[in-house]
Amino acid sequence: MAQSGTANRLDRRKARTRAALIAAGRTLLTTRDPAEVSIQEITDAADVGFGSFYNHFASKQELFETAVAEVVEEHGAMLDEVTAALGDPAEVFAASVRLTARFPKTQPEMAKIIERVGPGYLTAPTGLAPRALRDLQHAKDVGRFAFGDPQVTIACAGGAVLGVIHLGLLQPEPAAIDHAADELAANLLRMLGLPGDEASEIAARPLPAAG
Amino acid sequence: MAQSGTANRLDRRKARTRAALIAAGRTLLTTRDPAEVSIQEITDAADVGFGSFYNHFASKQELFETAVAEVVEEHGAMLDEVTAALGDPAEVFAASVRLTARFPKTQPEMAKIIERVGPGYLTAPTGLAPRALRDLQHAKDVGRFAFGDPQVTIACAGGAVLGVIHLGLLQPEPAAIDHAADELAANLLRMLGLPGDEASEIAARPLPAAG
Repeated sequence: MAQSGTANRLDRRKARTRAALIAAGRTLLTTRDPAEVSIQEITDAADVGFGSFYNHFASKQELFETAVAEVVEEHGAMLDEVTAALGDPAEVFAASVRLTARFPKTQPEMAKIIERVGPGYLTAPTGLAPRALRDLQHAKDVGRFAFGDPQVTIACAGGAVLGVIHLGLLQPEPAAIDHAADELAANLLRMLGLPGDEASEIAARPLPAAG
Repeated sequence: MAQSGTANRLDRRKARTRAALIAAGRTLLTTRDPAEVSIQEITDAADVGFGSFYNHFASKQELFETAVAEVVEEHGAMLDEVTAALGDPAEVFAASVRLTARFPKTQPEMAKIIERVGPGYLTAPTGLAPRALRDLQHAKDVGRFAFGDPQVTIACAGGAVLGVIHLGLLQPEPAAIDHAADELAANLLRMLGLPGDEASEIAARPLPAAG
């Protein structure tokens, strides 16, 4: 019993150290170029010993990739949860885009990480890309969207979202961010085959509450 | 006369050094993160003395900004030239997008620089952004395009181009790059209010020869 208690304590401590390193990686990503950050800075920011880094990660790159994967996964799970009650796939897509493009206002840390990672954010193997593919394909299957190559269409939609997040980080006026996010959604719905009036109407509906 | 000859020679030499530094900056941008590059590496690559760097640039950042501005300007001027003979603003826009998204195949150096610079490429004060704004506004004025906020629309279109360039650099198969570039143009023409059939037809027209 005592032994298993010790093992559990060690496991918990190990998990805490790992979580602290990932959290430090996330914070550093919001302000710093990963190329310029040393492992010493990461362990200092995480308040753990320098040597413990290599118990958890083989390299700085692996830590930052893990941190980004965690952000991408949280982002995707949040969108799934918030849009779960919506029936129309066009509205699900529009709400996902509008919520994400509001990140410079609502989730500045995530917005800065998305900006830092760039298009690689879209091609990460978990999280957003498979979700976006699933949602777009479903909307096409039920005749709601019309588009050609799904991979190209995701690159277009994702790139447009990145472009508008960039705008929001440059001009962080809340009303301007809301406006740009809704215009982005209307633009993308037209790209996906909806008529202009309907695209604008869907992009202006009340948003489901995030979180 | 002799004095003026000497002055001219010095001026020419100074211009050559500056050009060599900018060219080195461009080459380094294709493979390296500017944050990781030292001024010594830049002057070595340019084959000029370390001390001469500060005769031309106040900082590494100023050199890289100058190199990017040069690329953006060349890019914009090339598009203006190649599309000069086209009358339909929708075709001008589509050809510009299709040529740019082919860069991973036709101009790999420029594609890598665009990927490196990211959305900041679109907000650079010269070159592409003012040209894109001019072309989109003209197309809207003559009733060819329909969209809301021009700045948001440029961020969307530019971001989509960046997303497809990223795809092309990841999967550099020439036919796939052509296909993605043309799909991108059709997607953006729909976003700008064209019906799907017409968007696909314009995005499939023979391209004017670049350069």
